Amino acid sequence: MTTLEQEAESLVHSSDPNHPANHICTLCAKFYTLGWVRFTKKGGSAGTGGGTSIRHEDKIYIAPSGVQKELMKPTDMFVMDFNTKEYLRKPQVLKPSACTPLFLAAFERGAGCCIHTHSQWAVLVTLLVERDFGLEACFEIEEIEQIKGIPKFRGGRENLGYYDRLQIPIIENTAHEEDLRESLEAAMEKYPNSYAILVRRHGIYVWGDNVHKAKTQCESIDYILQLAVEMKKLGLPWTKS
Amino acid sequence: MTTLEQEAESLVHSSDPNHPANHICTLCAKFYTLGWVRFTKKGGSAGTGGGTSIRHEDKIYIAPSGVQKELMKPTDMFVMDFNTKEYLRKPQVLKPSACTPLFLAAFERGAGCCIHTHSQWAVLVTLLVERDFGLEACFEIEEIEQIKGIPKFRGGRENLGYYDRLQIPIIENTAHEEDLRESLEAAMEKYPNSYAILVRRHGIYVWGDNVHKAKTQCESIDYILQLAVEMKKLGLPWTKS
Amino acid sequence: MTTLEQEAESLVHSSDPNHPANHICTLCAKFYTLGWVRFTKKGGSAGTGGGTSIRHEDKIYIAPSGVQKELMKPTDMFVMDFNTKEYLRKPQVLKPSACTPLFLAAFERGAGCCIHTHSQWAVLVTLLVERDFGLEACFEIEEIEQIKGIPKFRGGRENLGYYDRLQIPIIENTAHEEDLRESLEAAMEKYPNSYAILVRRHGIYVWGDNVHKAKTQCESIDYILQLAVEMKKLGLPWTKS
Amino acid sequence: MTTLEQEAESLVHSSDPNHPANHICTLCAKFYTLGWVRFTKKGGSAGTGGGTSIRHEDKIYIAPSGVQKELMKPTDMFVMDFNTKEYLRKPQVLKPSACTPLFLAAFERGAGCCIHTHSQWAVLVTLLVERDFGLEACFEIEEIEQIKGIPKFRGGRENLGYYDRLQIPIIENTAHEEDLRESLEAAMEKYPNSYAILVRRHGIYVWGDNVHKAKTQCESIDYILQLAVEMKKLGLPWTKS
Repeated sequence: MTTLEQEAESLVHSSDPNHPANHICTLCAKFYTLGWVRFTKKGGSAGTGGGTSIRHEDKIYIAPSGVQKELMKPTDMFVMDFNTKEYLRKPQVLKPSACTPLFLAAFERGAGCCIHTHSQWAVLVTLLVERDFGLEACFEIEEIEQIKGIPKFRGGRENLGYYDRLQIPIIENTAHEEDLRESLEAAMEKYPNSYAILVRRHGIYVWGDNVHKAKTQCESIDYILQLAVEMKKLGLPWTKS
Repeated sequence: MTTLEQEAESLVHSSDPNHPANHICTLCAKFYTLGWVRFTKKGGSAGTGGGTSIRHEDKIYIAPSGVQKELMKPTDMFVMDFNTKEYLRKPQVLKPSACTPLFLAAFERGAGCCIHTHSQWAVLVTLLVERDFGLEACFEIEEIEQIKGIPKFRGGRENLGYYDRLQIPIIENTAHEEDLRESLEAAMEKYPNSYAILVRRHGIYVWGDNVHKAKTQCESIDYILQLAVEMKKLGLPWTKS
Repeated sequence: MTTLEQEAESLVHSSDPNHPANHICTLCAKFYTLGWVRFTKKGGSAGTGGGTSIRHEDKIYIAPSGVQKELMKPTDMFVMDFNTKEYLRKPQVLKPSACTPLFLAAFERGAGCCIHTHSQWAVLVTLLVERDFGLEACFEIEEIEQIKGIPKFRGGRENLGYYDRLQIPIIENTAHEEDLRESLEAAMEKYPNSYAILVRRHGIYVWGDNVHKAKTQCESIDYILQLAVEMKKLGLPWTKS
Repeated sequence: MTTLEQEAESLVHSSDPNHPANHICTLCAKFYTLGWVRFTKKGGSAGTGGGTSIRHEDKIYIAPSGVQKELMKPTDMFVMDFNTKEYLRKPQVLKPSACTPLFLAAFERGAGCCIHTHSQWAVLVTLLVERDFGLEACFEIEEIEQIKGIPKFRGGRENLGYYDRLQIPIIENTAHEEDLRESLEAAMEKYPNSYAILVRRHGIYVWGDNVHKAKTQCESIDYILQLAVEMKKLGLPWTKS
């Protein structure tokens, strides 16, 4: 093993459970149990089934595509230099996640962790919004306590209040995951305070200032999306007006 | 460490799994698995996502806000003197739960343990009651075996019978959790035998004479609320008349 | 400890996981996880929340009421002599299950294990049958592969075929669980090949020739009841005619 | 033990978790937890409740019928010679799976692993297709991201694209599982690129070129079937036209 290879290896070996390479594995296993990430496909552009990425200082740790999420190992991780966008570590038999350009879009706006899931509640909400409010509409809900788990301003410390309306933009899906980047970035600009973007018939991207925030925001939003689907089954409206 | 600090520390260190500081951690992990507590927010008044508190003799143990419920540790606990309402122990980097005044309202009426959840069944039931019976109505159901898991009189040993009607009052949500106290106490007075109060669009508070009773009452009520939602999906009425 | 007490104790101590006292604990924990048994109430006649009993030769092992099902210990077991119906072992601080007379009714008809659950699917099916087919009707379903998991004749080795119709009788609930015995036995006589009886607004009793059969029959029936509820939500009929 | 018996035993003893005999046990336990396999029946032709089989070189490993799926042990496995179709190993007290001829039909078309489940979503989808599109129709869905988890051509490396329509044929159930073989093979010929076949009122067969692919394809398809059922509950169509 060359010195360069040894350096690359050392990036993913740590006994600290909060080291990014370990943390991603724990999160993926937890998300698998929650049914958020099911589908993995070896082979790059054809699609990946959810994923997680962490930015730690100037390094980005990315779960590969093609690995069963509940069996992910730290040595499966790709590591990228945030400044040069070059890979510092590439597991030989694995393919990088097709979500990588989308994760980068979040990191360039200050995110410390980005989570992509195929949550069924997310998919169903995008279909319900299209049917009931039209293709241009975003998902809107108000006066649900759990809304208070979502930040009010990107980068700020304040969360939404109970009487605030939560808005999550929806972008149209594309044939190839990496082609989502343009519309994802457009939505990030149009909704400068949003920490989440739904993808029609596909799933959701949620990010946060750090791993802890990304995880709890993802949980709060999934709770709200599930509640929203159940409300529709019972004929209950999402907003007051 | 000063003697005072050592005393404060000793309050939460015990090898007994039934010690309140340990018990709260076990309960929170279990509730997380059940999906009752998802959202945690660091920062006091903006809200917390469910919580648990135990009164043991003249001490009150309270889970903090801002800690992931499945990762709670005994050393995360706040401990308050029940008589003076002063904190005997405050973890430095954590914020006390915004539910604290609401837990106190239950303890002052004899409770030994109080549980607050954001159960989706609870939220949906409050919305269904409002739509079908009006803002002033409380949740009512009868002739369901599980009702027999709920006490008939506060402080008594008798439970509801199969032919009794279970009533759970509903209070309106407020922007700030601590502002619920007034209406919560009013509902406690109006329904002197209730061990649970629903909060519209928010969740539920359930308490019991001790930890065991609070947990099993919380489980029985959540079972009933879930059943009630499924009944509405199937067009089945909650009461006979 | 007297010799008699030592003998009583030895009834529930075994390192064999298939010993009835151990087996009941494993089953109860599994059923708790499945949400079949939630509610426990200390105090005899007021009700119990599901339970399990095993007959082994001339001894009957019965889970107590009032113990959290996921925390059941072998030393919590009641042991009864099947012939004399006298308790060989009674844990001092616990109450025997109110289901005991109902379990006995199954054992007297050859059962080796009897399981009682408050499965929500069971409760909902009893309500749907009453609404759609009337109070006297039993639950009927046909042409579902899982039906083949249920025996065709009590005590026989043959199971129902795919084209056979599964019938599960429904009895009316009573204020006190032990008062179910008369109608339970009447249903056992009227449906001499049934291994399960639904109790309206309450749950289900399932038994089997041995522990293994009782467990798999209970799982098959719960699968069918859940499917039946989902079919009603989607407007699909249970039978062809 | 004779030399022949020793050879038979050595077929199922390995410390490698990816050895087929171990792998089947891990998969069955996982599928039990997901609720895909519930019902087991000792006794051959009457039916089995889901199962798994792996082909490794010229040997086929088959989970027995009649064993609780979550408790399967490597020594419970049947091993068959793929060329001669003779058993190399038969556990004495167990019955071979009634799915065996159906698994063979997949292996003869290149499969490396075949999974049969009684998933409720599969059963409900077959009923919904019959009601809404007629007995001859197959299940069709399009523009759902998860479709990209399913191969486009049998034996190829390309997966379905987002704009491709997923088709899963449905065959009619028969009284005896082994009698499904003829129509299963007819469907395999009619849909030469399908890796899955639904069985009306029964469940689904999913296979893959190897264990990893069979498992992830089974997970992707179950995700899609669950989503399809939820879409029907909400009145959402499966296809655009």
